[in-house]
Amino acid sequence: MLNTDDLKLAKGVKDWYGKQAILRNYVRDTLRSIFERYGYNPLETPIIEREEVLSFKGGGEIQKEVFRLKDQGRRNLALRFDQTVPLARFYANHPELKIPYKRYVIGEVFRDGPTQPDQGRYRIFTQCDVDIIGVENMAAEAELLTLASDAFKELGLGDVTVKINNRKLLDGIMDIAEIPDPVKIQAILILDKLEKIGIEAVKKELSEIEGRPLSSPAVDTLIKNTVIQGNNHEKIDYLNGIMASNTGKEGLQEIRQLLSYCNEMDFDFVEFDPSLARGLDYYTGTTLEVFLKKKDIVNSAIIAGGRFDNMIGDFKGTEVPIPAVGFSFGLERTCMAIESIMSDLKETTVKLFIIPLGTLAESLKIAHIIRQQKINVDIDLADRSLKAAMRYANSLDIPFVGIIGENEIKKEVITIKRLSDGLQNEVPIIDVKSYLERNGNSKVGLE
Amino acid sequence: MLNTDDLKLAKGVKDWYGKQAILRNYVRDTLRSIFERYGYNPLETPIIEREEVLSFKGGGEIQKEVFRLKDQGRRNLALRFDQTVPLARFYANHPELKIPYKRYVIGEVFRDGPTQPDQGRYRIFTQCDVDIIGVENMAAEAELLTLASDAFKELGLGDVTVKINNRKLLDGIMDIAEIPDPVKIQAILILDKLEKIGIEAVKKELSEIEGRPLSSPAVDTLIKNTVIQGNNHEKIDYLNGIMASNTGKEGLQEIRQLLSYCNEMDFDFVEFDPSLARGLDYYTGTTLEVFLKKKDIVNSAIIAGGRFDNMIGDFKGTEVPIPAVGFSFGLERTCMAIESIMSDLKETTVKLFIIPLGTLAESLKIAHIIRQQKINVDIDLADRSLKAAMRYANSLDIPFVGIIGENEIKKEVITIKRLSDGLQNEVPIIDVKSYLERNGNSKVGLE
Repeated sequence: MLNTDDLKLAKGVKDWYGKQAILRNYVRDTLRSIFERYGYNPLETPIIEREEVLSFKGGGEIQKEVFRLKDQGRRNLALRFDQTVPLARFYANHPELKIPYKRYVIGEVFRDGPTQPDQGRYRIFTQCDVDIIGVENMAAEAELLTLASDAFKELGLGDVTVKINNRKLLDGIMDIAEIPDPVKIQAILILDKLEKIGIEAVKKELSEIEGRPLSSPAVDTLIKNTVIQGNNHEKIDYLNGIMASNTGKEGLQEIRQLLSYCNEMDFDFVEFDPSLARGLDYYTGTTLEVFLKKKDIVNSAIIAGGRFDNMIGDFKGTEVPIPAVGFSFGLERTCMAIESIMSDLKETTVKLFIIPLGTLAESLKIAHIIRQQKINVDIDLADRSLKAAMRYANSLDIPFVGIIGENEIKKEVITIKRLSDGLQNEVPIIDVKSYLERNGNSKVGLE
Repeated sequence: MLNTDDLKLAKGVKDWYGKQAILRNYVRDTLRSIFERYGYNPLETPIIEREEVLSFKGGGEIQKEVFRLKDQGRRNLALRFDQTVPLARFYANHPELKIPYKRYVIGEVFRDGPTQPDQGRYRIFTQCDVDIIGVENMAAEAELLTLASDAFKELGLGDVTVKINNRKLLDGIMDIAEIPDPVKIQAILILDKLEKIGIEAVKKELSEIEGRPLSSPAVDTLIKNTVIQGNNHEKIDYLNGIMASNTGKEGLQEIRQLLSYCNEMDFDFVEFDPSLARGLDYYTGTTLEVFLKKKDIVNSAIIAGGRFDNMIGDFKGTEVPIPAVGFSFGLERTCMAIESIMSDLKETTVKLFIIPLGTLAESLKIAHIIRQQKINVDIDLADRSLKAAMRYANSLDIPFVGIIGENEIKKEVITIKRLSDGLQNEVPIIDVKSYLERNGNSKVGLE
C-alpha cells in the first residue's frame, strides 16, 4: 500500500482551481485579445524539444534548471525553459515565413530550480510572450511598450513603470572599466542581481568571479557608470561624454531613438536605467522590464524581455543576424497583482443553479433550453432536498437558484431566487436570460 | 558545430501555427464556453506529477507510454498521460471541496507511443475534459451527452452518433462466457480493438492471451453476446434474457435508465453497443464514444469517456466508492474534422495592415488610436516601400491595408483599401471601426 504522501503534488508545482483558475483564464483571454489587437498571431510549439535545441542557446545558469528526459528510443529530450528558444528553432525550420513575423504564445515553461510561491515563482509557470522577428528599427520596441501599457490598463492594474537599457551600451560601459570580453556576460549576470542583493554584494561577487576576478578599480568604474542618478537626458549626456567604443555609441543611439518614439507617444513612464541587466545571455540590444507603478503590490517585474538579434541567425546557420525583439508577461505574477487589488473575484462561472423537486428528467430539458440562451447553468444532478441544494449553491457563491417543482412545470416557469437578498420571482422559461441580466450584478472586472 | 537536423522538432510532436493555431484557439474557446454553460468550472493541474501518482491508476498498457524524468533532488516524476488521474489526485487532496464537483480542463497530455498524424495522434496532444464527481445517477451521463451534442452543433460539425455501453454489463457478459476474473480486463482491452482490427483478429488475440488463453467456446460466446444486431430495445431484451449475474443486471439497468433520459431529451442519436470496450482499465460503469454522423470526415471517436467510480476513493484511501463520470474531447481530432469541412479558415487575426509612407512615428500613434477601438491592427514597422508592404499584406491574407502618408496625416484620415477587390476610401480615423464592419466579410465560423 502506498503512503498517501506519495499521492500528493510534485515539489514546486501547483494546482489552480476556484477563483484563481477563473482569474487565470481571464488574464489569458485579455492578453490574447490585446496581442491580436497588436497584430500578433498565435503559435504553439511543443513542450518537449530535443535536448540539443534547448542547450544550443540560453546557456550558462539556466542549463542547470532544464528538465531532461528520454523517450523509448533513448532520444535525448528536454522540457522548454522559455518560449524564445523554441521560437528561434521554429522560425529557423520555416524559411517560407514572411518577415516581419509577429507571434504570440501562452503556455507553460519548466525550470528545475528553487521556488518562491509568495513571488509567484514555481517550477512550472506560464509565459505569455510576444515577439517580432525581422524589425531592426526601435519602432518595434516602442510598439511593445504601447502594448504593455494597454494590457496593464485593461487588466485593471493601472499605470506602469518601464525600465530600459541596452546590451551594446553595457558592452561599451564594460570596455571603459576594462573588463575583458570573456568575463562580460558573467559580469552582466551578476549586475542583474543589483535590485535583489544590493550594490555591496554585487561588488563582492564581481571581485570574486572564478578564474577572472575583476580588479577593484574595474568594479568601481562599472558601478559608477551603471548606477547613475538623474533623468533620462542627464544619464544619456553623462554616458555620451565618456563612451569610447563604437558598440557602446550604437547602444546609446538606440536608447535615444527608442526614447524619442516614446516621447512621440507621450509616454512619460519610461526610465532609462544603465544598470538593468537581465539574467539571460542571449540579449544583444535593448533590454526592458515593466513594473507596476504601485510598487507595494508586486515589486518584481511583471514583464521582461529584450532584443536577441543573433539567436535566430545562429539557429538557421546564417552569418547575417536576423533582428528579433519581444517580451514575456509572467501569468502567475500578473494574477498575483490582480488578486491583491481586486478583492471580489468570481468563485464560479455558474449564474443559475437549478434545483429540481421531483422533476429531474424535465428539469434536464429545461436546463438545456436555458443553456441555449447562452447562460451558465448548473443543475442538481444528485437530486437532493431543497435545503441541501440551497446550501450547496450558497457555498459555491452561485448568484441565483431556480426551483422547478410540479407547479413550475405546469405553468412553464421557474422560480428564481437571488441568493444575495432573497429576491424571488416566477419567471417564464423564455425570459430567464433577460431576467438574470436585469437582476444580476457581476463581480468586478471579470464579465 | 551541430548538425542542423539536431535543431529540428522532437519525434512525434508538432508546431501549430497559421490557420491551424487560430482554429485551435477557436475550438478551445468554443468548448470552454460550452463547458461553463453546463456548470463546469476550470481546473489546471500541473503537467508534471509524482511518478507514483501516475502509476497508481491507469495501469497496464499505458504505463509503457509514460514519459518519466527526475528533478535535481532525484525525485521520480512523470508527465501526465491523461487528465483523469490528476483529477482524482487533486480531488483526493482537497477534502474541503463540495460534491457534486464539476470541473473542466483543457491541456496537453503526453504519451511516448506510436504516432499517426493522419488520425491526429501525436506524442503530445490536448485533451478537453469535463468530469462530474459525486453523482451516481445516470442523469450525469445524460447531461454529458447533451453537452456533446451542443458542442458539435456549435463547432459546425453537425449531428453526432453516440455509442454507449457499460462495464458492469460487460462483466456479466464475460461471466456468461465463463471468462475468469483475472483475464477480464485483458479481454476488454482486446475487445476494444474490434473496430480497428475486425472480429477475426480479436478472436485470435482472445484465444492467445498469454498464460490464460480463452477457450474457443468462451471466445464465441463473448463475441456472440457483444456483437449483437438490432435496435437498442432488441439488444436490451436479448441481454435481459441471458443475463445471470447481479453485476450484469445492474449494468443493464443503468443502460436502460440512461436511454430513458435520452428519450426524454428526444435524443435519437444514442446507440447501445455491447461491444464498446474503451482501452483504459479504470472504468467501472458507463463507457461512451461520440462520432461524427458523417463518418467519411473523421471516423475515429472525437469524444470518449465513461464512469470511474472507484478511482477517487482509491486515491483518498476510503472504502466507500466515490462516483465519477466524464469524457474528453480530442482537440487535434476535432480540429481535423473542422478543417475537412470548412475550407475557408482564417490565416491571420489581423484586420487592417497600416503602411506608413514616411510617417512611422505618427502612424504608430494612429495605430494605437485604432487599436483602442478594439480592432486588430498590424503596422509595417520595417518601414518598407508601399509595394513591398502591399505584397506582404496580401501574402498574409490580411483583408484591409491602411495607407498613411503626409496627406492623410494633414486630413486626419487613413486611406483604406480592401485587398479582395481594391475598394478604396479615405476614412476619418475615428470612423475606422464602423467602416471596417460595414465593408468586411469574415471567414466562416471564426468571428
